Amino acid sequence: MGAKLEDNSLRYRRAQSVTKAEEITEKEKKARRLQLDRPCHKPRDSLFSWSSEFTDFTGLVNWGFLMLTIGGLRLCLENFLKYGIRVNPIEWIILLTGYNEGNSDQYPSIVLLIYSVVPAVTSLLIEKAMAVDILSEKIGVVLQILNILSTISLPVLVHNFSSQEFSFVGITTVCTIYLILFLKLWSYVQTNHWCRNGSKGKHVKNTMRRQSLSAPNWNQLVNADSDQTAESEKDDDLVTGIVSYPDNINLRDLFYFLLAPTLCYELNFPRTTRIRKRFLIKRIVEVIFGINLIMALFQQWMIPSVTNAMDPFSKMDYIRIAERLLKLAVPNHFIWLCFFYLSFHSFLNLVGEVMHFADRNFYNDWWNARNIAVFWSTWNMPVHMWAARHVYVPITEMGYTKGVASIVVFFISAFFHEYLVSVPLQMFRIWAFLGMMAQPPLSVISRFIGKRFGARWGNIIVWSSLILGQPLAIMMYYHDYALAHYK
Amino acid sequence: MGAKLEDNSLRYRRAQSVTKAEEITEKEKKARRLQLDRPCHKPRDSLFSWSSEFTDFTGLVNWGFLMLTIGGLRLCLENFLKYGIRVNPIEWIILLTGYNEGNSDQYPSIVLLIYSVVPAVTSLLIEKAMAVDILSEKIGVVLQILNILSTISLPVLVHNFSSQEFSFVGITTVCTIYLILFLKLWSYVQTNHWCRNGSKGKHVKNTMRRQSLSAPNWNQLVNADSDQTAESEKDDDLVTGIVSYPDNINLRDLFYFLLAPTLCYELNFPRTTRIRKRFLIKRIVEVIFGINLIMALFQQWMIPSVTNAMDPFSKMDYIRIAERLLKLAVPNHFIWLCFFYLSFHSFLNLVGEVMHFADRNFYNDWWNARNIAVFWSTWNMPVHMWAARHVYVPITEMGYTKGVASIVVFFISAFFHEYLVSVPLQMFRIWAFLGMMAQPPLSVISRFIGKRFGARWGNIIVWSSLILGQPLAIMMYYHDYALAHYK
Repeated sequence: MGAKLEDNSLRYRRAQSVTKAEEITEKEKKARRLQLDRPCHKPRDSLFSWSSEFTDFTGLVNWGFLMLTIGGLRLCLENFLKYGIRVNPIEWIILLTGYNEGNSDQYPSIVLLIYSVVPAVTSLLIEKAMAVDILSEKIGVVLQILNILSTISLPVLVHNFSSQEFSFVGITTVCTIYLILFLKLWSYVQTNHWCRNGSKGKHVKNTMRRQSLSAPNWNQLVNADSDQTAESEKDDDLVTGIVSYPDNINLRDLFYFLLAPTLCYELNFPRTTRIRKRFLIKRIVEVIFGINLIMALFQQWMIPSVTNAMDPFSKMDYIRIAERLLKLAVPNHFIWLCFFYLSFHSFLNLVGEVMHFADRNFYNDWWNARNIAVFWSTWNMPVHMWAARHVYVPITEMGYTKGVASIVVFFISAFFHEYLVSVPLQMFRIWAFLGMMAQPPLSVISRFIGKRFGARWGNIIVWSSLILGQPLAIMMYYHDYALAHYK
Repeated sequence: MGAKLEDNSLRYRRAQSVTKAEEITEKEKKARRLQLDRPCHKPRDSLFSWSSEFTDFTGLVNWGFLMLTIGGLRLCLENFLKYGIRVNPIEWIILLTGYNEGNSDQYPSIVLLIYSVVPAVTSLLIEKAMAVDILSEKIGVVLQILNILSTISLPVLVHNFSSQEFSFVGITTVCTIYLILFLKLWSYVQTNHWCRNGSKGKHVKNTMRRQSLSAPNWNQLVNADSDQTAESEKDDDLVTGIVSYPDNINLRDLFYFLLAPTLCYELNFPRTTRIRKRFLIKRIVEVIFGINLIMALFQQWMIPSVTNAMDPFSKMDYIRIAERLLKLAVPNHFIWLCFFYLSFHSFLNLVGEVMHFADRNFYNDWWNARNIAVFWSTWNMPVHMWAARHVYVPITEMGYTKGVASIVVFFISAFFHEYLVSVPLQMFRIWAFLGMMAQPPLSVISRFIGKRFGARWGNIIVWSSLILGQPLAIMMYYHDYALAHYK
């Protein structure tokens, strides 16, 4: 209590002294102006003093980006001086085709990619059979689930039996494509299921209405009305070109969905009326340039950094590990940013333009994300929309809480991250899985920090986890991979 | 003309296609909402597309500063891993006292620092003699100029005759103090000169007025009036405590000016009423901590960087020189920023607080400077005010253009930069002089860029010249110094 009083009196005195320090009476000012010595001083505070209330530090933002540019330029020069030019397009071709690795007469990756049409068509056939009532709903759904599960298992099985014949890039591509196919077929089957249930629901409603009302005249009226509604709906569909279930169950519609840049099936995608040629050319140039840039950066910058980081990692020398991780973080983050732009802006917009697909919401402004949950729901919109529509909402509709639904979404996401890493590397570690499962608790922490210290600090946590989390995971996998293969 | 038309039509078409891509009729929307397949797509553009008009990239500023922090942390770790801990306070003491360098029984630096009182008192005596009319104006001014010139020449002469007895830090301090003394005495003499001329001017006016009017009554009236004015002025002075010439010509006033944190003399400095103890303690802590930080950074980071840069510099290997310069730029810039804060905020505010000096305008917001001219007129306010008041304005008043006055200011500034570097190093290169003389043309370029591309780019030019110009100059001097001493 006494201390508080003292503190208050101190504050009061300080405030007073500042006022006095800056004050000079009008009379004195006037008198000073009449002097012959050309006075040039007047009472004022330095800008860094809290009493000056100066807050314009916009130049420091320019300073920050200039320092980053200079640092980047130096890293670039240092890299070239240390390693020379390592970019070698011939190596890329070898890496991409898998030439020189195992039997070059067989291309199992390409065979598997072509085979991916089979589960898709199977799914279509089962849907068709259900639509025309050849298959019962129950058997159809079971068959669909089996088909989808076999889709995701196929690359694992094939790769396990003949791993020598796959190139690393080949099996990664196969896994990615089969994962996308898995998500798309899930969406296709579930959406068609909704449509079937929906039209049945309408029918049930009509039946119930008919049962609950006893007056026969009224019944006829209602029937006539509902018939008219159905007819007018049909008319509307013809006018606007809207497709209704089961008219959508055909090859053309399925393949449009499989090629469209989205994971969520719907019967009537928003379409553009024409292809903007300039836009298309820009995206094509970006894709070609971007792929080359990423491969060059990888060879020139990433591989030496990862290799250099191995030694301290296996010796568990923590200070050196930290130094190497920070060194690795820069090229990794830079490549990730390039990869993000290349895939989510250039490539998906290119596909969307070619397919006349009008919804280009492939990413949101994740760079402003104020916590980690916001980041995960903004950086990859196709997956986010899929997870929300086909996992999160159905689970909450089943009566579970939002928390449970979120955990399930992160669990599935963690599983597929692990899938994409473990299958190509043939190492069933759980680093990627754990990395994803660490996101919900991290999200709680970042939300707390964002609320406690302001949105800026939440955003900084998001960026930090992005910049530092990835190289950590990469180092752990590379360490285990090197241990398994070179020891 | 044809090309322009085509361009316009292209633009028109593109704008149209975007509108169409985003437009969907109300009817279609309504129809879509009634669908059973839970549609989740709608026509929209990606955020990076120019047509999305999205501009919120505030998160990238956080990203920038986070990357800088991470880069700085890594540099710090790398430095410790590479060089170990090099900070050694005993070396500082040796460096500061000049112990171990030459004859340690004599301390010529300290003798010279004490001797600096002599030219100051000489200047006071000459002023006094002129004020009481013992010396004529002409002889007095000549004596003052001789006194000032001898002040600035003294360290050069003494150092030339007995350079072995000076430590490097000692002679640098002596040169700095004598340079400040030179500027202060110049201001002291010139301001007193203005006051003398001013009071004479008043007298002349009165005389002329008396001559031009012939009516004796009116004359008496005017005389009485002017006497009254003089008396009332005297009264005002007594009330407000304002000192007039020649009451200011005394030791107390001169020493206050010599110790005050300004280079511009005036008869009545604005004063604070009390010393703020907390403010004083903060500044003292900052000064002590800052000196230690700068010396530690210098030993740990700067010296290894400079030494490492020597080899490529002497071999004229341009790519390596560029890499080394960029590497050197970071510690140099960081130390310069610390030095700036330490001297211009902490130290000068400390002195100002102790001296009850109220004008703390030691620096302005140079970090926002939109071109190099603005930077030079904001970063060092004492020198800027001195140059404006005692060189620039007098020259323009003599009828010369502003351009000429600016060139003269930069010439004097360049001379003293060279003085501060060449005398301690005993190497009369002209790198510092050329560096300063390059500022006016650079200023024109940066002003052009600022006008052409916006203030942001002008500011970036300012920062670049600051970050890259200094290490270049340092390397050139160090290179020449090493060549002269170690070959």
